[in-house]
Amino acid sequence: MCRWVAYSGSPVLLEELLFKPKHSLIDQSLHSRLGAETTNGDGFGIGWYGVGQEPGVFHSVEPAWNDRNLKDLAQHLLSPLVFAHIRASTGTAVQQTNCHPFRHGRWIWQHNGGIREFPVVKRDLVLAIDPSLYPEIQGSTDTEVFFYLALSFGLEDDPPGAVARAVGLIESTGRAHGVEYPIQMTVATTDGSSVWAFRYSSERNSRSLFFSTAIDTLRAQYPDNPILHGLSDETRLIVSEPLGDLEGAWNEVPESSWGVVQEGQDELHAFEPRPPSS
Amino acid sequence: MCRWVAYSGSPVLLEELLFKPKHSLIDQSLHSRLGAETTNGDGFGIGWYGVGQEPGVFHSVEPAWNDRNLKDLAQHLLSPLVFAHIRASTGTAVQQTNCHPFRHGRWIWQHNGGIREFPVVKRDLVLAIDPSLYPEIQGSTDTEVFFYLALSFGLEDDPPGAVARAVGLIESTGRAHGVEYPIQMTVATTDGSSVWAFRYSSERNSRSLFFSTAIDTLRAQYPDNPILHGLSDETRLIVSEPLGDLEGAWNEVPESSWGVVQEGQDELHAFEPRPPSS
Amino acid sequence: MCRWVAYSGSPVLLEELLFKPKHSLIDQSLHSRLGAETTNGDGFGIGWYGVGQEPGVFHSVEPAWNDRNLKDLAQHLLSPLVFAHIRASTGTAVQQTNCHPFRHGRWIWQHNGGIREFPVVKRDLVLAIDPSLYPEIQGSTDTEVFFYLALSFGLEDDPPGAVARAVGLIESTGRAHGVEYPIQMTVATTDGSSVWAFRYSSERNSRSLFFSTAIDTLRAQYPDNPILHGLSDETRLIVSEPLGDLEGAWNEVPESSWGVVQEGQDELHAFEPRPPSS
Amino acid sequence: MCRWVAYSGSPVLLEELLFKPKHSLIDQSLHSRLGAETTNGDGFGIGWYGVGQEPGVFHSVEPAWNDRNLKDLAQHLLSPLVFAHIRASTGTAVQQTNCHPFRHGRWIWQHNGGIREFPVVKRDLVLAIDPSLYPEIQGSTDTEVFFYLALSFGLEDDPPGAVARAVGLIESTGRAHGVEYPIQMTVATTDGSSVWAFRYSSERNSRSLFFSTAIDTLRAQYPDNPILHGLSDETRLIVSEPLGDLEGAWNEVPESSWGVVQEGQDELHAFEPRPPSS
Repeated sequence: MCRWVAYSGSPVLLEELLFKPKHSLIDQSLHSRLGAETTNGDGFGIGWYGVGQEPGVFHSVEPAWNDRNLKDLAQHLLSPLVFAHIRASTGTAVQQTNCHPFRHGRWIWQHNGGIREFPVVKRDLVLAIDPSLYPEIQGSTDTEVFFYLALSFGLEDDPPGAVARAVGLIESTGRAHGVEYPIQMTVATTDGSSVWAFRYSSERNSRSLFFSTAIDTLRAQYPDNPILHGLSDETRLIVSEPLGDLEGAWNEVPESSWGVVQEGQDELHAFEPRPPSS
Repeated sequence: MCRWVAYSGSPVLLEELLFKPKHSLIDQSLHSRLGAETTNGDGFGIGWYGVGQEPGVFHSVEPAWNDRNLKDLAQHLLSPLVFAHIRASTGTAVQQTNCHPFRHGRWIWQHNGGIREFPVVKRDLVLAIDPSLYPEIQGSTDTEVFFYLALSFGLEDDPPGAVARAVGLIESTGRAHGVEYPIQMTVATTDGSSVWAFRYSSERNSRSLFFSTAIDTLRAQYPDNPILHGLSDETRLIVSEPLGDLEGAWNEVPESSWGVVQEGQDELHAFEPRPPSS
Repeated sequence: MCRWVAYSGSPVLLEELLFKPKHSLIDQSLHSRLGAETTNGDGFGIGWYGVGQEPGVFHSVEPAWNDRNLKDLAQHLLSPLVFAHIRASTGTAVQQTNCHPFRHGRWIWQHNGGIREFPVVKRDLVLAIDPSLYPEIQGSTDTEVFFYLALSFGLEDDPPGAVARAVGLIESTGRAHGVEYPIQMTVATTDGSSVWAFRYSSERNSRSLFFSTAIDTLRAQYPDNPILHGLSDETRLIVSEPLGDLEGAWNEVPESSWGVVQEGQDELHAFEPRPPSS
Repeated sequence: MCRWVAYSGSPVLLEELLFKPKHSLIDQSLHSRLGAETTNGDGFGIGWYGVGQEPGVFHSVEPAWNDRNLKDLAQHLLSPLVFAHIRASTGTAVQQTNCHPFRHGRWIWQHNGGIREFPVVKRDLVLAIDPSLYPEIQGSTDTEVFFYLALSFGLEDDPPGAVARAVGLIESTGRAHGVEYPIQMTVATTDGSSVWAFRYSSERNSRSLFFSTAIDTLRAQYPDNPILHGLSDETRLIVSEPLGDLEGAWNEVPESSWGVVQEGQDELHAFEPRPPSS
């Protein structure tokens, strides 16, 4: 459906992240290996932290592989925390307001997968969004509704809890409408300092997700690799598909789990949706 | 805010309608004389009936005055019933799904004006839309919500009654949120055979609207005008601003009124919103 | 590189041609089987004859598979002669003025392949274009330059001869700059009544090209197929890749040849570039 | 025709330059006071120096006044040298490759005005471009041809001399084709350290151009203005129309002159085209 990358660590030129690696995200927009669709040509977006308190967001519906603005921006933006997403629409319009990452204040959010039978369940889900947040919705995708549900359930205070409640509601709503497997997801979200990632699906057969091996481990393994020596120990990537071809660099996020990349020790836990009644 | 044209009658090449008249709609996109904004450069759309049961719709967010596709289509589409609209956004995104005319089955709808404080009242209005119609909404504008309210209130059976009820609800909802003048509107809608037009605003100071003089009257007045001889007696235009410069060709639609262009005698009546309690 | 379709015959709704067949051109934009690239997502275009003397042309750089305007136009345009093209850029910008088909007066032109090392040879080729035609060039592609060379060499009077001379010049110019195989091409062009198609490459290993079997032959073979009974005997398709799955419906255009679909007997001949000296 | 701004000095957030001043460039895109056209809605562009050796360039054909990417980038890009341009097309296509500023290596270039009868003189002018530079041309505007002529005549070594020779050629070429006043221009160009600006037209009635008063002078005049205290003495703006409303802040560039903003003393001189024969 979609492909995404979340980067946190030593300031990186976006070009190094998006264009230069073998099998980069931009390559994946034309030739994804692990995606449900090989082409992700229905828009892309980047979110980054740098100047100013809020993250910058850039969205486009031109094909990422030939977008001159993206190429130019990637050569001129340097950031310690970057999200990037390429979209394969599951039905909603190809327009900038449907491109990830979505933003609310200091938070951004991106998603691969979908809420199944979204037209059928959309109204019920939208009604569960906090009325004070509702006017902020600008597009028509399932992902934006999912983000605002998570915000309504306290994303800014307890990200794993809020996502668990949002997923619980999506599952119970879907099932009330006869949808067997209401959600399929890998999600990344950040407040500009920590990055949370989730891998889950109602059928327990979730889209692929990988996190990078700790830099100090890789450095020990590859003592002569100059790139690894330029990166801080805190540098970490979470991706839909492995980038580059460094043996040992990638680890699969287990089925039904969530993790957080943060100052100090990163964490990995089981993910369990929290149904509305609970 | 916006400018629009509705044409019904002898089949016309869209170019004759949109580009060739003095002070044409395309001229108005750069230099509106009577609009709240002189520039209407936030997208445009056309709707037309011809091949097939349903109307065709074409939307674009490029500047209408320099759009090569519009120019080309206008030279190659011939139709007896055409809507055209140029947009000046009142805040919502400039994207194709926000361009008029909006379509549902055989019906199309276009609007100049706005629902005031739309972010504040949007949720309440959306809740009043028939849940079976709700999934069809694709954009984020006040106009599309207005259209789906009218559809929910029976537009397809009783257009003037449905619009009166939709406006009544918009006014009562706005007032409940402290909005003094909740709506400003000129609206055109059609099912492909008759065209209904409405001019109304809560402050009784509505955007301009004009209808063309009956062709037989104009023909008597201008016996040597070849264009008038090529048009059927049933041909009628409704426009935000007069096109061309034929003296006597345009009549202002009175404040707070609605009219219908139809086979046989056209009609003009007073318009009165119908509050929800009634 | 690209994929294209040329249709001539009984008036067809564009949707029947572009969207409905199995493995339609729109399918090919995402999943080409025989193309050099599987994704053709860098713009598309259609050209058709109908209202007016000149053909209509519609170009877009949105992904064809999700373009709402294309879908809508295809449902509302009926034409006896249609060209359609999906593009995979070989380097030049993704913009409407680089989309095929290109037009000059009543003529349109579309191309799959490319002029190799185009930046190196472009200036010399442009100098060979008739100065009176030069100002019409609007984009930056090799194909548009190729079209204007053919026009300069008499396309409107002798299409096969003009294309032979244009290809001859492209080959001699390329070779003068050390390009081993200067051109790769399948081309279609029409004046609105006949359709000429060419398959050629300097290396004699040209992109695929197919023409449809005569309708009366197919009708005899499939006496119960209702679609075949609705088509005139003159109906003929030329395509980069077979559409649908009707056994016996498609024939490969031989290497280095040209053909013409016309009133009466269609023709197929060997194609030989004509070097400038000749 | 167009409007532009060139800024050099203390690093500025692009938003402060483009959106915040009274009568900002973005305001001018809808409501220019001094331009030949009030609306400049046919594309915009920014160029800025920062990360990397080469300037960044961002081009878009969406209406600048409602472009969300521009707004977001402007809030997140900080630069000591910024060019910005809004376009009103004089006939060539509205596409990114026709947006200013144009770039070559470390140089960028923007222009208000035009080469008159450009379709008539284009071929002769293009032939005068250095063949090694020719393949870099990507769009179809007069301005890009003008830029490559200046580059061909030594812009990188002697900007005023190269522009004088380019204008001399444009004038002699135009006159050879019977064009009375071949050029109208205000131009800005920079290599990332100095900024050169030119005001000239064949009829000696050039588009408006202004430069800002020296910061130390303004600071003495407005001792309590905090913004002026935040700017270095070297900060200087050159603009098509004055921004803001600070009395004494703007000085008209005299007819037929050029100036340079550089480290140390800025300069202002008479401009004289240099005909090809000289």
